[in-house]
Amino acid sequence: MSLSMYEVSVPLFVHTLTSLKAILQKGAAHAEAKKFDSFVLANSRLAPDMLALVRQVQIASDAAKGALARLSGTEPPKFEDTETTLDDLVVRVDKTISYLNSFSATQLDGSDERTVTVKTSRGDFTFNGLSFLRHWALPNFFFHVTTTYNLLRHNGVELGKSDYLGRVQN
Amino acid sequence: MSLSMYEVSVPLFVHTLTSLKAILQKGAAHAEAKKFDSFVLANSRLAPDMLALVRQVQIASDAAKGALARLSGTEPPKFEDTETTLDDLVVRVDKTISYLNSFSATQLDGSDERTVTVKTSRGDFTFNGLSFLRHWALPNFFFHVTTTYNLLRHNGVELGKSDYLGRVQN
Repeated sequence: MSLSMYEVSVPLFVHTLTSLKAILQKGAAHAEAKKFDSFVLANSRLAPDMLALVRQVQIASDAAKGALARLSGTEPPKFEDTETTLDDLVVRVDKTISYLNSFSATQLDGSDERTVTVKTSRGDFTFNGLSFLRHWALPNFFFHVTTTYNLLRHNGVELGKSDYLGRVQN
Repeated sequence: MSLSMYEVSVPLFVHTLTSLKAILQKGAAHAEAKKFDSFVLANSRLAPDMLALVRQVQIASDAAKGALARLSGTEPPKFEDTETTLDDLVVRVDKTISYLNSFSATQLDGSDERTVTVKTSRGDFTFNGLSFLRHWALPNFFFHVTTTYNLLRHNGVELGKSDYLGRVQN
């Protein structure tokens, strides 16, 4: 009848990161089939002043691991942002999934009421854990995963909504 | 210490729909300032076989209202999909917010365990309410909001991440 913070965070992030991995693999396969360097896709942008695909994936990864670290009051592992290819990004996503799967539900107990502060270029924002998750971490995470999908789709990779929604399961 | 299904659905959808409304209004203002018909933006696509902006917003609206209807075991209001301009879409988003705000927390009690079936062109999917929310309704909703943002951004509307994340609050 009642939910835990774990139930509305870890399985959600892992599910969609698994889709993101599959989407990146389709992008890499597309580049290989069309005989162009996947570096082109990795550096593609939807607008000159939007971030390139590599950064979109790095930030999706950071949004997920940063959310769990903040909610549990621990330090996230630092990933060095050295990825340049879609294959590198698949490894990044895998590392992120492994980190998320290291959490137990008890580590997040009570985190809905934990004070979370996010430092941004617009100043610091302070929320409780629940508002941080639903109004910051989740929207931010899905933004960067969807933008990655849109970048590949815009560049001709054959993807459909089912690649994004992933394998449906309870 | 424990969350309700209401807490991880209605406030989340309303928060991001409020951002979507502001994003659409910035799109409309941009078209007016540049003296072109906002119909062009409303019909823009990121790929020839992706849905146009109008449909992205309609589906975001349907994802939110459909989620609450399914979780509460009620019928959602039918919106006729007649919007053609960004201003029309702002009205659609407002109607969606009003519908979501009509729910009380008790209407969703126990909905994490409710059986939800989604009919798609790929077949029917059946989940419990929690899995439906976190693996289907939320990813789908954020996909269409983000794609709307990306379409406007790709077409030169001056938007930033803060427009998407919205006003941060507990």
